[in-house]
Amino acid sequence: DLLSYEESVPLSCAQISLGLKYEAKEQRFAISVLQIANCSALPLPAERNIYVRVAVLPCSEATRCLFRTSGVAPQDPVQLNEVFGMHVAHNALRQKTLRVDVCVTSASGREQCLAGAQISLADVSSSGERQVRWYNLLNHTHMSNIDRK
Amino acid sequence: DLLSYEESVPLSCAQISLGLKYEAKEQRFAISVLQIANCSALPLPAERNIYVRVAVLPCSEATRCLFRTSGVAPQDPVQLNEVFGMHVAHNALRQKTLRVDVCVTSASGREQCLAGAQISLADVSSSGERQVRWYNLLNHTHMSNIDRK
Repeated sequence: DLLSYEESVPLSCAQISLGLKYEAKEQRFAISVLQIANCSALPLPAERNIYVRVAVLPCSEATRCLFRTSGVAPQDPVQLNEVFGMHVAHNALRQKTLRVDVCVTSASGREQCLAGAQISLADVSSSGERQVRWYNLLNHTHMSNIDRK
Repeated sequence: DLLSYEESVPLSCAQISLGLKYEAKEQRFAISVLQIANCSALPLPAERNIYVRVAVLPCSEATRCLFRTSGVAPQDPVQLNEVFGMHVAHNALRQKTLRVDVCVTSASGREQCLAGAQISLADVSSSGERQVRWYNLLNHTHMSNIDRK
């Protein structure tokens, strides 16, 4: 029975808490990277600090759209509490996608992203209130598995 | 001035309309792939039909979690109107991510996905009502650009 299988062996995933706010008056989009929960579900290499990479895509050359938090040890939960802001018209923002990845720096110094969330900004509110939500983080290995099928 | 640049050269993106419904009584999750708008923003090879690949991830071996629509010519808007269903407990579903990609079959017969949306199911409602929304599609080239930075 499929159902009892799913119930008896619950899949677990890491989650990230983000706050999104658009201030119409200043035409500023602010992304708060707040917390990561259930880090044990991430495919983490040993003894590496993790950080969060935030990208607002597509990115025009004229605007900064790529941000990274400081690195922290992967305890549970991870507190990040960093805010990134960018200057963008609301109409332009509504055609963009927010991509958030949990990454480590590999032994060779390369950025290695392990899991991510992707958020369509088509419905982003211009109310000026920060909307905080938890998003599931999808391990990149799951994506590469379906790309090979 | 960054703002006038963004306003004078509006970025455009393709969008996909999806309906999501969870029926608690039957423990069934239904994904309706409805329409694609603004296909001209997709990096389409000439004279290929497009289709939509839908994956509910992570995928346990016991359940089917990967679906594909029929192929259609990339006119504007593309009408798809296909519904895929899977049997899953609500608690398990809320730890999953819905990944939706617009793909073509390349000349060599390989699946080539061009753009996608990713939707955290952490907040999926169990009301039994279908929730229809438009999601921005992010071209995969934009993701690979930041991975190289």
